[in-house]
Amino acid sequence: MANKIAAGAHIADDVIIGSNVVIGDGCTINPGCIIGNNVVIEEGTYLDYGVIVRDYVSIKEGGKIGARCILGEYLVEFFQKKEYGFHPLVIGKNAQIRSETIIYGENELGDYFQTGHRVTIREKSSIGNHVRIGTLSDIQGYCEIQDYVNLHSNVHIGQKSVIQKYAWIFPYVVLTNDPNPPSESLLGVTIEEFAVVSTGSIILPGLTVGAGALVGAGAIVTKNIEQGMVAVGNPAKAVCHTERITDNVTGEKVYPWQYTFDRGMPWQDIGYEKWEKEQQRYENNAEQA
Amino acid sequence: MANKIAAGAHIADDVIIGSNVVIGDGCTINPGCIIGNNVVIEEGTYLDYGVIVRDYVSIKEGGKIGARCILGEYLVEFFQKKEYGFHPLVIGKNAQIRSETIIYGENELGDYFQTGHRVTIREKSSIGNHVRIGTLSDIQGYCEIQDYVNLHSNVHIGQKSVIQKYAWIFPYVVLTNDPNPPSESLLGVTIEEFAVVSTGSIILPGLTVGAGALVGAGAIVTKNIEQGMVAVGNPAKAVCHTERITDNVTGEKVYPWQYTFDRGMPWQDIGYEKWEKEQQRYENNAEQA
Amino acid sequence: MANKIAAGAHIADDVIIGSNVVIGDGCTINPGCIIGNNVVIEEGTYLDYGVIVRDYVSIKEGGKIGARCILGEYLVEFFQKKEYGFHPLVIGKNAQIRSETIIYGENELGDYFQTGHRVTIREKSSIGNHVRIGTLSDIQGYCEIQDYVNLHSNVHIGQKSVIQKYAWIFPYVVLTNDPNPPSESLLGVTIEEFAVVSTGSIILPGLTVGAGALVGAGAIVTKNIEQGMVAVGNPAKAVCHTERITDNVTGEKVYPWQYTFDRGMPWQDIGYEKWEKEQQRYENNAEQA
Repeated sequence: MANKIAAGAHIADDVIIGSNVVIGDGCTINPGCIIGNNVVIEEGTYLDYGVIVRDYVSIKEGGKIGARCILGEYLVEFFQKKEYGFHPLVIGKNAQIRSETIIYGENELGDYFQTGHRVTIREKSSIGNHVRIGTLSDIQGYCEIQDYVNLHSNVHIGQKSVIQKYAWIFPYVVLTNDPNPPSESLLGVTIEEFAVVSTGSIILPGLTVGAGALVGAGAIVTKNIEQGMVAVGNPAKAVCHTERITDNVTGEKVYPWQYTFDRGMPWQDIGYEKWEKEQQRYENNAEQA
Repeated sequence: MANKIAAGAHIADDVIIGSNVVIGDGCTINPGCIIGNNVVIEEGTYLDYGVIVRDYVSIKEGGKIGARCILGEYLVEFFQKKEYGFHPLVIGKNAQIRSETIIYGENELGDYFQTGHRVTIREKSSIGNHVRIGTLSDIQGYCEIQDYVNLHSNVHIGQKSVIQKYAWIFPYVVLTNDPNPPSESLLGVTIEEFAVVSTGSIILPGLTVGAGALVGAGAIVTKNIEQGMVAVGNPAKAVCHTERITDNVTGEKVYPWQYTFDRGMPWQDIGYEKWEKEQQRYENNAEQA
Repeated sequence: MANKIAAGAHIADDVIIGSNVVIGDGCTINPGCIIGNNVVIEEGTYLDYGVIVRDYVSIKEGGKIGARCILGEYLVEFFQKKEYGFHPLVIGKNAQIRSETIIYGENELGDYFQTGHRVTIREKSSIGNHVRIGTLSDIQGYCEIQDYVNLHSNVHIGQKSVIQKYAWIFPYVVLTNDPNPPSESLLGVTIEEFAVVSTGSIILPGLTVGAGALVGAGAIVTKNIEQGMVAVGNPAKAVCHTERITDNVTGEKVYPWQYTFDRGMPWQDIGYEKWEKEQQRYENNAEQA
């Protein structure tokens, strides 16, 4: 099919463009980019130098794609079979993806997605809205990352992991999945809502870090962590409830963190308490309707 | 010398090709690739967009090279001397190297070599057949990685390491080598056959992890680990023999793992027991002959 | 303004060059490079294939820039505002930056700067002379790295860190900064002169590793480490003074390391003792003058 390139799109001369491509108004495609077949790039999207967009990739409006990203990267099937299947990638609106990030086909990412540099996201990663993933993080695919999750730099998310809303994962954390390495069993880790996993901790296969729990830096977690508990050490032990933690300087309570921190969160500028009440009111109304 | 490009090779118009280059039948060289001098690319090899192949690189038949790999990367000498020496790279047949991997010159890799993305392999790394190295792993060179070794993502292999056949190394493991940092002594780590080093463990300089041993996640290994033993903790202590480990669900023994796992191994579909007997029969025949 | 390209500069035909660019004699700019506006590339600088140099970047004489580096990378402002501000990058003379390194604008790096591959350096990182940063290391910006600091591979330097002269940091070390994650407080770590932080250790927010101290591999540092002390374990405990450490083979003292190691240090070939005396003599003379 013929391509539909908006008159107001700025496309460098050397860009290679496949067939059945739609490029919206106000898009900029910089030199060295390569656009495959059956690609949709919605209005106001910016592709910096040398971005590779493979077949069946859809970038919603307002995307900012850093230099030399690879979007819709080939699954292993590409190397092994003669025919490459249908493995679409959808990137939600207003994405901000920093340079050299690689995102596989067969993925669906929500709106307001942000990455650092050189992130790798393999296939079948379900990623919600307002998710941020830091430089060098490696999402191994076949996992679920819900809305407003924050992964810092250099985090490794094994297959079958589930990371629930508002969870935070700090640098060099690994969510493992093989209980008897090497084996064919894969038991994913679950990080529940509002949980915080600090720098360099490792969560063993199949375990759950409970809602609002705090895993200390360098903890090796070998048992489930109950909701709201603090666990530290190798092997990790639950030492107290997060509510007992106070700031060293102010002496004030700092957890549950949603009452003291709001940047980038849906309760920003409103406060968690008020926001939560509004949420409940909406839900009650919805139930009654 | 004149280049020998097979009639059946598909080479994009903008590819830069040096002199004395041989490209075999059925090869595909995508746009943006740069091919140096004295390069051999055997039949059926695929170079995705923007691969840089420097001088004296040889890729055996059937290679699949992902976008923007750099093959035959310059040794430090390139930056420091006026003349750059002869530092060939040989990649065995049927390699499958994912995008943005960097492999230095002065390396020889076996057949069926596989990598994830953004692997770095420095010079004088001897790598056997059927070796797999995961995303972001960093092989510092001057080391030996034998047949059927599996390195998962983000593994750091210090210089002078030796990793014997069928060993497994999981994410964020570091094999160190400097006993008194910073010093000029380099004492490499040895990981023996069938040993398993779990996520995030660190092996101190000069130590040996014995054949079939299992190092637990996050272990800091400060002493040799005897064959077949399980070591955990910081500092790591041997806690039992691997044969005492049973699967949490089935209750069955899981180690030695070669009896319960075969994917990608030479005993795949035959079973280790039968395969081993055949191996011994071959060896006996060879001795008698 | 018109560009000033020296007659003796070798610039590939396809290189894209902005306006107000100065390129010195003896420079080589390889194919695929992109040079922005208001860029100065001093004499004898080498840009390998596909280097992106953004606006207001200045590379002093003798730089060697590996393939596909991105120099002057965009701050987050680029994605968020209509107008991008003035964020210059200055790279000191005789830099040796390996392929695929990303260095942000608004940075000033000293002379003889060296990196491995795929290093990331964000804005407002003050970096001294003779600093070396290994493959995959991630400098998060807003930090200070003084002269002759060595960071090995895959080191993560959080914002507000200070690393003083002659300090060494080994692979997979993380300098953290958030005392109550997630929070808005940032308390940087200080690594004092001559301190050594071994592989895989994590330093908690706001702490100081004292001058000449040695942090053992895999240590989780939760308290300040006194000058010259050795700390190991999770949580780390000070176990002895570094002067009590002897080499396993020779039985000789190895710390303070500056007396036994000199490669790349200003006392190379002179010895620390003699060099230090000379330094003091200079300082005394300067005071008297």
